[in-house]
Amino acid sequence: MVIIGGSDAGVSAALRAREVNPEIKPLLITADNFPNYSICGLPYYISRDVANWENLAHRTIEEIKKTGIELLLGHAAQSCNAKEKQLRIVDENGESKTIGYDKLIIATGGLSVKPKISGIGLPGVFFLRWVPESIAIDEFIRKKKPKKALIIGAGYIGMEMSEALMKRGIKVTIVEFLESVLPSVDVDIGNKIRIMLAEKGIDIHTNTSVESIIKIKDDLIVKGSNNLELSTDMVLASVGSMPNTLLGKSFGINTGIKDALKVNLKMETNIPDVYTAGDCVETWHRILQKHVYLPLGTTAHKQGRIAGENAAGGDKEFSGSMGTQSVKIFDTVIARTGLNDKEAVQAGFQPMSAEFETWDHKVYYPPVEKVYIKVTADKKTKRILGAQMLGAYKTEISKRIDIFATAMYHNITANEFSNYDLSYTPPLSSPWDPVQMAVQRLEKIL
Amino acid sequence: MVIIGGSDAGVSAALRAREVNPEIKPLLITADNFPNYSICGLPYYISRDVANWENLAHRTIEEIKKTGIELLLGHAAQSCNAKEKQLRIVDENGESKTIGYDKLIIATGGLSVKPKISGIGLPGVFFLRWVPESIAIDEFIRKKKPKKALIIGAGYIGMEMSEALMKRGIKVTIVEFLESVLPSVDVDIGNKIRIMLAEKGIDIHTNTSVESIIKIKDDLIVKGSNNLELSTDMVLASVGSMPNTLLGKSFGINTGIKDALKVNLKMETNIPDVYTAGDCVETWHRILQKHVYLPLGTTAHKQGRIAGENAAGGDKEFSGSMGTQSVKIFDTVIARTGLNDKEAVQAGFQPMSAEFETWDHKVYYPPVEKVYIKVTADKKTKRILGAQMLGAYKTEISKRIDIFATAMYHNITANEFSNYDLSYTPPLSSPWDPVQMAVQRLEKIL
Repeated sequence: MVIIGGSDAGVSAALRAREVNPEIKPLLITADNFPNYSICGLPYYISRDVANWENLAHRTIEEIKKTGIELLLGHAAQSCNAKEKQLRIVDENGESKTIGYDKLIIATGGLSVKPKISGIGLPGVFFLRWVPESIAIDEFIRKKKPKKALIIGAGYIGMEMSEALMKRGIKVTIVEFLESVLPSVDVDIGNKIRIMLAEKGIDIHTNTSVESIIKIKDDLIVKGSNNLELSTDMVLASVGSMPNTLLGKSFGINTGIKDALKVNLKMETNIPDVYTAGDCVETWHRILQKHVYLPLGTTAHKQGRIAGENAAGGDKEFSGSMGTQSVKIFDTVIARTGLNDKEAVQAGFQPMSAEFETWDHKVYYPPVEKVYIKVTADKKTKRILGAQMLGAYKTEISKRIDIFATAMYHNITANEFSNYDLSYTPPLSSPWDPVQMAVQRLEKIL
Repeated sequence: MVIIGGSDAGVSAALRAREVNPEIKPLLITADNFPNYSICGLPYYISRDVANWENLAHRTIEEIKKTGIELLLGHAAQSCNAKEKQLRIVDENGESKTIGYDKLIIATGGLSVKPKISGIGLPGVFFLRWVPESIAIDEFIRKKKPKKALIIGAGYIGMEMSEALMKRGIKVTIVEFLESVLPSVDVDIGNKIRIMLAEKGIDIHTNTSVESIIKIKDDLIVKGSNNLELSTDMVLASVGSMPNTLLGKSFGINTGIKDALKVNLKMETNIPDVYTAGDCVETWHRILQKHVYLPLGTTAHKQGRIAGENAAGGDKEFSGSMGTQSVKIFDTVIARTGLNDKEAVQAGFQPMSAEFETWDHKVYYPPVEKVYIKVTADKKTKRILGAQMLGAYKTEISKRIDIFATAMYHNITANEFSNYDLSYTPPLSSPWDPVQMAVQRLEKIL
């Protein structure tokens, strides 16, 4: 078994294959020398919450080897002869060799989207997806001591990086093309986040596209729509991910939405004995009941596990993503699962949403924090379609969203949701948990 | 509609009846003058986390009245003529009157079990279930300034009160009849709690029954098995709850397990138009598929809501308790749902349990805390039967147990549990949440 790609999907596949059949010794080939790194952790290296980038490895190289996985670092897969089941790989010095495979798993992951902005390649303009990029940003901060940074894109990475750069003493401006920050949640929640960010001293321009960056001496001048013209010391472009499918396409693997590799629920491609998983593939959405491109670490782990199990002789199907996501920005946590109101409309549902705010636990036991919940159900079927939450760090927001994710996996209706026997003790909840109180509000208008 | 009892079940019933049919003006009769108090909050009044006991009211009298509920405080129901649908009530001065009802909901709650110990009625020996009892304990502490306290029973109240009394500067000793503390979790977890309590300076005697208390001057001498003989300044007896069924029985309502009132899933008794809910009734256990006596605030709310809905003309069934419970003791949270290993054996399952310990979130983002999870499934069906967790406060233990409670409501198997799309961000979880990692361990041995 050969696996190309040493991030979440690739390593999960290898580990699962070993679990299912300990006879298998998967060969894991990675283009760089940083296998099994936590991409989601990179902002915390910039913020210096993580002192050494080495700590960001989910597993060290030694730990991976100990599980019985063979590692071949610094080798890129170049081409493939699917009929002969042979793979051509090349090392960093350009030396190439051919290796055979019985089962092949492609886990080449994703790439940062490079926006069409003139000057995007200038020094001082960064992307953040890989360990070397985070090291480069850190070095730039240490050497150039920038006072101002401009972040293009107010998604998860942009949000986390605004905090990280502020922690390094840098004044941050965010420019977002859409109408609100964190476009994965509804605009009303985005506006709450925006207010929070503004209170932290971050400048935000929404409905604004960046068109050009020019360098004048040490300054970067960023121009865009709405008469945007700002001088800054560094730029971070975080406008999303795209699938890295160059290799997969060279094998003849079909592609689908957003040009991601097509797979069935068993993570099989159209090429016999070739599986694929993670940020390079389409993802089945359990609520939309169709494929989407939704690259997430959690999904990559699940898909990788299934690809590994099936490549090892198993017969497991990916049960679909709910689009569950959480993020901590300063002291606020925002989490979502399923469809937000806007997405539910687009998908042809008749969504009804209730907004509800309460305390995270009994108000008599201080300190308490406010928790905001927006829950959406389909008017016709009463089925809960999605939930969005916002609240202080350490108020169990992220696992409260998981109650919804778990419930929605089973197609729960709003009317049945109050049946759940959820835990209560005054320092941690209420006899009806806030998630149930929110759904009870929704019941009244459904 | 007349409701007897102003705690969780009674108030929930009244509120729900008003929601279902706003024409209904329920009359809520309470024996004392403290409607809708949080019984679970009383230890936090003793600990002084709650400055005023008035804050422990879920709703003030004014707030209850505003919802359209009529209140009749300080009136005990004495007898009932079910044929004529008439109720005899008596006020605190002994004056009685007769009132009629169309629908009657009995929510008389529970009582502290009074253990058969000689001297249990002595001054300085307390129970804790009602507001006046907590005021009496507080007054005793302020006036007598006790240095030592002995708690009989290491259940939830005993555990919370050990912390509360320590916060008041009192040295605490716990005496428990069973082999470990917090008998609602397996002994191995009880032992972890015991170690934590010992580190806090609490003395614990297990496998020990208290037999007598005698008073010598200002000292209480507590004697029991295993040559127990301790001198203390105060005693708290917290050995469990029993249903308060005196009134229900006088109506001719049948009783069942532990002498609790019998109800069907609609919370109807054997007397026409008489419903009952809360700590005075049997509770349907969803996993055991039989009635148990399991008095919990969460269950009282659910049962009360159903009684209120049905008494108002609805047709709803109680879906059963999972026995979900959580407690915070000092800085540790312990939570459980479903059956523990021992209960699963008793119920005739073939349980397999996996124990798993990991960090609450990615270890590279400090500070992290250890989370211990024990998860139990049936070997034959692979169905998850229960989960127990222990970890630091603020590590989302209580809502992590709710992921299990939600999943088990839907009869999830261990093999399917990893399908859940749970949220992840490095400061709050891992790509596989600890609950999923624990179940993956269990899968391997099932």
